[in-house]
Amino acid sequence: VARWKSVAILGVGLIGGSIGLALRKRGLSDEIVGIGHRQVTLDSALAVQAVSTATTDLAAGVADAEIVIVCTPVLQIVPLVQQIASCCRPDTLITDAGSTKAGLADRLGRILAPSTRYVGSHPLAGSDKSGVGFADADLFQDRVVVVAGSSRNSRTDVEAVTEFWQALGARCVEMTPDDHDRAVAITSHLPHVVASLLAGLTPVEHRSLVAGGWLDTTRIAAADEELWAQILLENRDHLLPLIESYREQLEELTKALQRGDRTALTAQLRIGKQRRNAVAS
Amino acid sequence: VARWKSVAILGVGLIGGSIGLALRKRGLSDEIVGIGHRQVTLDSALAVQAVSTATTDLAAGVADAEIVIVCTPVLQIVPLVQQIASCCRPDTLITDAGSTKAGLADRLGRILAPSTRYVGSHPLAGSDKSGVGFADADLFQDRVVVVAGSSRNSRTDVEAVTEFWQALGARCVEMTPDDHDRAVAITSHLPHVVASLLAGLTPVEHRSLVAGGWLDTTRIAAADEELWAQILLENRDHLLPLIESYREQLEELTKALQRGDRTALTAQLRIGKQRRNAVAS
Repeated sequence: VARWKSVAILGVGLIGGSIGLALRKRGLSDEIVGIGHRQVTLDSALAVQAVSTATTDLAAGVADAEIVIVCTPVLQIVPLVQQIASCCRPDTLITDAGSTKAGLADRLGRILAPSTRYVGSHPLAGSDKSGVGFADADLFQDRVVVVAGSSRNSRTDVEAVTEFWQALGARCVEMTPDDHDRAVAITSHLPHVVASLLAGLTPVEHRSLVAGGWLDTTRIAAADEELWAQILLENRDHLLPLIESYREQLEELTKALQRGDRTALTAQLRIGKQRRNAVAS
Repeated sequence: VARWKSVAILGVGLIGGSIGLALRKRGLSDEIVGIGHRQVTLDSALAVQAVSTATTDLAAGVADAEIVIVCTPVLQIVPLVQQIASCCRPDTLITDAGSTKAGLADRLGRILAPSTRYVGSHPLAGSDKSGVGFADADLFQDRVVVVAGSSRNSRTDVEAVTEFWQALGARCVEMTPDDHDRAVAITSHLPHVVASLLAGLTPVEHRSLVAGGWLDTTRIAAADEELWAQILLENRDHLLPLIESYREQLEELTKALQRGDRTALTAQLRIGKQRRNAVAS
């Protein structure tokens, strides 16, 4: 297992805080620097010992870091990586934990010097909870992290980022940024849309009749709406055609219901069942 | 807690089997008769001791029963209740565990003699699993059971059915059949549609990128498609307008994505979040 002298975490919420706790629990880094713009958040991270030092000064925070992980909302990642690259050591490895990858890779590819060691990644370990208060040293244990290297990345750098997440207990999958975004559009972003709209249509007065089905199906609707609006917009090119396919399926089901066609309805539900079983297995 | 000399259960799958196990665990009935048309299912129910005797002969099975619970797919409930009523003792209480209530109440109201003691009920304790192998003596513990008395029912009979489910550990809620069906259309039936279509659209190749969100959102899609096609069709009058509202919400979200309107998208997701938190609290 690898070991780092200094790791800097930019944004110490659920993900950033969990990275800090995992590093500490596993004894992987001598120094864990938390960087944020709100002192109160940094104080919370210090209180739960997710970081060993904390600062609101980005340049000071990354100065000694061998690796910097940007764990902020998606919209802030590009300007922050650019800023980090301008003040960190030339050999500092930079990655992020954003839920979309292609837009970041495109924009950063145009901005960054070829020598800047930035490789995007995405830990599939979110929660409907947010904040360092829910951070968990085992959040990444046996979870998948996508390492989304692009054509500008060297093998060495892709492997170094892979090694970082593996050290936290994760299983790494390598994908191109575009393949990643296409896949998560259906495995994560469409589920979010579907769950949120369902929750939004449910009247509070029917609360007593809610059981496991509704609770499971809507759970992710409780997640932070600002973060998710950014994610969905960032991946809209892949998401919009999927929403269209979904709408077509809904129309097919509506027609089967309208004409009382139990055979067609059963067949459509059977596809859902078979696919659920195949994908979850 | 009430006690019965003989209880007959028609259909010993997950629900019927769990009723039998709960009666036995709590020592509520001297005799628990399982009735079904397949001997192999009855043998399984006997093997796990969900019933104390079993028969494929409906008339013989209900002859001594003080209470009969029909736990079959929705489409079979009306003819079976009619048949039971024609051969049981005049004071036998009959109920069912069907997921829809208004259609059954209407049809049975026209068929049954006024003296027949039938009161519909619906335990909100399903699962994506089926069969007596998944039956559980505690399935109804602290779960809601709707007792859907109609105008033809006496208070005595509604209370007797309520007492039965309470004896199994359930919390009973009294509703009219129509109010029940309107409520479960949004708390159970639309979630099923939404989950099934989402699962059906997910390619197996993206399996490695599936995490908690997708797994939770699609869980109920794994349920028996024949049972659910019957349920959705039976409640289509309440379900179809909800699907239309859902489609409108999907269109609103699509337009916000298309025009890159983060404020509108955030506002829509916020409604889902607030409603999720309010309904689940």
